[in-house]
Amino acid sequence: MGYQPGTTGIVVQNIERVSLEIIDGLAEMGCATVHEAQGRKGLLASYMRPIYTGARVAGSALTILSPPMDNWMIHVAIEQLKEGDIMVLGTTSPSDAGYFGDLLATSAQAHGCRGLVIDGGVRDLADLTEMNFPVWSKAVGAQGTIKATLGSVNVPVVCADALVNPGDVIVADDDGVVCVRGDEAAAVLEKARARVASEEARRARFAAGELGLDIYDMRARLAEMGLTYV
Amino acid sequence: MGYQPGTTGIVVQNIERVSLEIIDGLAEMGCATVHEAQGRKGLLASYMRPIYTGARVAGSALTILSPPMDNWMIHVAIEQLKEGDIMVLGTTSPSDAGYFGDLLATSAQAHGCRGLVIDGGVRDLADLTEMNFPVWSKAVGAQGTIKATLGSVNVPVVCADALVNPGDVIVADDDGVVCVRGDEAAAVLEKARARVASEEARRARFAAGELGLDIYDMRARLAEMGLTYV
Amino acid sequence: MGYQPGTTGIVVQNIERVSLEIIDGLAEMGCATVHEAQGRKGLLASYMRPIYTGARVAGSALTILSPPMDNWMIHVAIEQLKEGDIMVLGTTSPSDAGYFGDLLATSAQAHGCRGLVIDGGVRDLADLTEMNFPVWSKAVGAQGTIKATLGSVNVPVVCADALVNPGDVIVADDDGVVCVRGDEAAAVLEKARARVASEEARRARFAAGELGLDIYDMRARLAEMGLTYV
Amino acid sequence: MGYQPGTTGIVVQNIERVSLEIIDGLAEMGCATVHEAQGRKGLLASYMRPIYTGARVAGSALTILSPPMDNWMIHVAIEQLKEGDIMVLGTTSPSDAGYFGDLLATSAQAHGCRGLVIDGGVRDLADLTEMNFPVWSKAVGAQGTIKATLGSVNVPVVCADALVNPGDVIVADDDGVVCVRGDEAAAVLEKARARVASEEARRARFAAGELGLDIYDMRARLAEMGLTYV
Amino acid sequence: MGYQPGTTGIVVQNIERVSLEIIDGLAEMGCATVHEAQGRKGLLASYMRPIYTGARVAGSALTILSPPMDNWMIHVAIEQLKEGDIMVLGTTSPSDAGYFGDLLATSAQAHGCRGLVIDGGVRDLADLTEMNFPVWSKAVGAQGTIKATLGSVNVPVVCADALVNPGDVIVADDDGVVCVRGDEAAAVLEKARARVASEEARRARFAAGELGLDIYDMRARLAEMGLTYV
Amino acid sequence: MGYQPGTTGIVVQNIERVSLEIIDGLAEMGCATVHEAQGRKGLLASYMRPIYTGARVAGSALTILSPPMDNWMIHVAIEQLKEGDIMVLGTTSPSDAGYFGDLLATSAQAHGCRGLVIDGGVRDLADLTEMNFPVWSKAVGAQGTIKATLGSVNVPVVCADALVNPGDVIVADDDGVVCVRGDEAAAVLEKARARVASEEARRARFAAGELGLDIYDMRARLAEMGLTYV
Repeated sequence: MGYQPGTTGIVVQNIERVSLEIIDGLAEMGCATVHEAQGRKGLLASYMRPIYTGARVAGSALTILSPPMDNWMIHVAIEQLKEGDIMVLGTTSPSDAGYFGDLLATSAQAHGCRGLVIDGGVRDLADLTEMNFPVWSKAVGAQGTIKATLGSVNVPVVCADALVNPGDVIVADDDGVVCVRGDEAAAVLEKARARVASEEARRARFAAGELGLDIYDMRARLAEMGLTYV
Repeated sequence: MGYQPGTTGIVVQNIERVSLEIIDGLAEMGCATVHEAQGRKGLLASYMRPIYTGARVAGSALTILSPPMDNWMIHVAIEQLKEGDIMVLGTTSPSDAGYFGDLLATSAQAHGCRGLVIDGGVRDLADLTEMNFPVWSKAVGAQGTIKATLGSVNVPVVCADALVNPGDVIVADDDGVVCVRGDEAAAVLEKARARVASEEARRARFAAGELGLDIYDMRARLAEMGLTYV
Repeated sequence: MGYQPGTTGIVVQNIERVSLEIIDGLAEMGCATVHEAQGRKGLLASYMRPIYTGARVAGSALTILSPPMDNWMIHVAIEQLKEGDIMVLGTTSPSDAGYFGDLLATSAQAHGCRGLVIDGGVRDLADLTEMNFPVWSKAVGAQGTIKATLGSVNVPVVCADALVNPGDVIVADDDGVVCVRGDEAAAVLEKARARVASEEARRARFAAGELGLDIYDMRARLAEMGLTYV
Repeated sequence: MGYQPGTTGIVVQNIERVSLEIIDGLAEMGCATVHEAQGRKGLLASYMRPIYTGARVAGSALTILSPPMDNWMIHVAIEQLKEGDIMVLGTTSPSDAGYFGDLLATSAQAHGCRGLVIDGGVRDLADLTEMNFPVWSKAVGAQGTIKATLGSVNVPVVCADALVNPGDVIVADDDGVVCVRGDEAAAVLEKARARVASEEARRARFAAGELGLDIYDMRARLAEMGLTYV
Repeated sequence: MGYQPGTTGIVVQNIERVSLEIIDGLAEMGCATVHEAQGRKGLLASYMRPIYTGARVAGSALTILSPPMDNWMIHVAIEQLKEGDIMVLGTTSPSDAGYFGDLLATSAQAHGCRGLVIDGGVRDLADLTEMNFPVWSKAVGAQGTIKATLGSVNVPVVCADALVNPGDVIVADDDGVVCVRGDEAAAVLEKARARVASEEARRARFAAGELGLDIYDMRARLAEMGLTYV
Repeated sequence: MGYQPGTTGIVVQNIERVSLEIIDGLAEMGCATVHEAQGRKGLLASYMRPIYTGARVAGSALTILSPPMDNWMIHVAIEQLKEGDIMVLGTTSPSDAGYFGDLLATSAQAHGCRGLVIDGGVRDLADLTEMNFPVWSKAVGAQGTIKATLGSVNVPVVCADALVNPGDVIVADDDGVVCVRGDEAAAVLEKARARVASEEARRARFAAGELGLDIYDMRARLAEMGLTYV
């Protein structure tokens, strides 16, 4: 991208996005399947939890780097939103304050935003739930933030232990959040679909009572390693 | 109040309460708005979570100081309840045990209690949810407590990092819990209403697609601080 | 059981189970009541949370000892399941990875399994919820696991601070998880029923406004200990 | 004290202090003994740890209320220091940032300050250790703070779960930090000395091999409660 | 052992101990080596930290089961101590209170005790350090405990995620605490010595600059798995 | 660098390093000063603690990406070490296992390595301390790791919330760890020296009793913001 993670004072306006067709395809696959399909990388820390259950979304990452307890850059970011984006906010120092609430969600939703992934706190949960605006966050916190220091928009950010570049694809559901590199998204979608297809076949066999020991042919290797039945 | 936080063996019977009209007004405003309206003070720690979502209540704080793992004082406190009270329990040493369950909730509800804020654990979640008795707690825990040592009722208590005086107003919802000083409650309600009114106006503008950058006139200051668009 | 906790490479095939009648009786009682009825022992750590609210189950413990990040033994365990079992998984070293998801749940459910208690992570929450397959876990995590190292099935395991023997009865609901020794299950059920009966009687008195101070005759002892009303 | 906890924008200049003779007496007793002597109240949360081992100090609390990540009020507080004071800093919202380092310690030490108790972070540990300036903190953090928002000096503050009033006596050592109300300090010192004296006598008996079972005459009560030797 | 973990009200007086020669041999090996030598089992949770660095001890486990915040059973346990024992305390419910201090250490040391492993808190750190009485604990806490409820001595206990039987060998140093089954101790010592011997040989080669890649002959397998040098 | 964070199976052999003169200059400045000098970015999470106090080092980052509980890549990395390097290890999924001990330290030290920064666990603390091999880690853990899965060497890694590129400069001491971009290191050193020089001047004034209120000329602004002395 040309900009180092941690650079402040920059708004990158033109970023490359993956097609919505691919993004929507990844949403259907869900977080766990996508994580597997891309070789078990890109998963955000398991402390990132959804504010309500049942949401499953994918979007193009619009990244925000914020100083701790400062949500100014979210306003800057909203102007850069395009239909199908998910905002991903990392901070330069940790804080559980409530950076985001119903007014910002109203604004973001009006500009096509599908959700927020924030390594910090969020508030106005009842309103956000009613608006169907999903958020994955580290904390819920009513504590307000200020607007005093610059961060950046659309530079790479570290969010919940993962590096997210602008234009990466974010897939999030009740299991958590995974980040897919933009230039790998199409290939990952293909692998995920193959995985789901083969899982479907196996699910029927499992439901019929067949054992994983047989489906995956594990008995010989277990015996060889010394597993003993008594 | 005349009694120091931490004093044990005391039950203060007559405390000053704010009118239910003001309390109910604050309930409508919600935790985050009230916290902002009173200058961002009085917020309890963000680890205090509701046992079920969707509750939004306010009440006059009936405070309870409990020894760790000892819920005796809750029985003492229930006799002091008046319609519209919320019990606020702090402990002299931390514990996640389950101080409170469905029998105590039945008793408290019969005496007009609207909910419980407890810097400890709670149990019987299914029953409490069915009873519509909201609890904000540090933990869920089935571990029982004992009745062996005195604490106090209606002395100031530290609960989840905040000092709560008897008769303060507690406002709690999915975002957390905030404490309003009794003698500031009327003024805070007025400020909160003004805040909500101005937010309503802004919400419509946000929903119509106007940007916070313009609504709050931020562009000049951001440019002055050096924000660069690339 | 003859096998020490921590022994790996062993699958015990024949374990003694408590009758389903007793198990189902304990399920009705719920976790907190059972914990009290057996003298406040056997409770798993309060960090064990259900993946959805409202489940209340009991089952015969089929225990699994797993290496960290390795779910191979779950496949081995499923073959040993009998109608009414709950799988209880402890690990030889802690990890929040997602050991269990919808395919394994499909397989387990097909073999009569009522749920999972896991001192680790779980994934595919949306599917598990839809399947009505309850799980109590330390974490939610999409991170996958491997199948490389042997553990054991049906040896005693430490799970969330508690020792669980194969054939112990697990009772779990929104309040948490408790383990009842197999040879004490019948007696515990009897005590739990007595407790519930006496609670029912008291609940009516509480609902009618009677105070615990009077029901439990506490006033004299409180006064004797020096409780002062002011 | 006249000022509520949480009030910002206030510096109280004249506070009542306990005599240094009593304060120094309490320092000799140490945190655990003083905590016992005053009836097990006033202990700060156990997450408060010293930056180096071996310090044992007492001082008159000069309290500081700081906004999160803002250390401006420490400069204001230093002007109010008197010989024998310990600064006690609570925040209006939690943060682990490094509010305090070697320059502030140099300034505070020049004004008679004996140490710092801070519900936040501290930095420059090597320098502070070399200066023999003890600090008990929630965290070590190099992250800098700002000077933008008012707090208060010498109003009551909640610090690590305890309420500290200006002029209370702080006693801190490797075991933690305890707060003694100013008007109880003399009485607590007396009780602590009595406790130490009786402990000294018992220590000799313990060292000689006598058992607590006999020294405290516990055998009868244990037997009565049903303790069984097998 | 005949007694189930969690059984209260029992003191087992005669337990089998491993010879001091084997115990002292294991002490020399240290925690990490012993853990490896016995196949990576028996390690206590990594939150167990020593109160001072540099101690390395082994002892025969004298186990204590304590109710939360109740240290009565430690007095009972001390009577059962034999030269070379280490006390291992687990609780029926978690608490960070300070169960153990200098008086109990004086008594225990007088009866041959080499240290304490406690899934709870400890106090009087300065004294314990001066006495060279090592403690591994979950917390440091000045909060006192009571003597009100029975636990047990020398029944199996769960301590920091591990099951410890009376007479097991405890090995503890700066790296943590590991438990060796009594009947495996001799064999584990032999394996640990072999491990140390082979490590010594390798240490010299490492110090001379040889690479693990060559010493362990890893290059072929890494290449085969696809490791690419660029 | 050409390689994305998270890429596995790659060893980058030639990376650009900053001159040892600049690196050693940064070491003298220490973590907190360097962090300030570069505009408060690049700080690793405050949970990264040194295994012993008093170390202050800087080095060129040799980065390691490891699968969870797998330390194979450390052997690969050691071959790439040059005099003055510090190894920085991030993982693809979190674990507190002990990836590193005295044998690896012996090998690394023989190849010029100055220390290790690891977002995981470390063991053999006594040996590492005696060897003067400093480590900053998330945990101490005796639990062993395996050698089964490829990671990478000298690709960008996320370590304790910070992105570290190979060849960045790591500065670490008792206050924590900060990462300086390679191409900014010279400029940051200059700013850090200027900062230290100005601090020296101020330190003398503070030591002489001058107040920060006067040195920084804060009184007018405080008054203007409404600070009230009572």
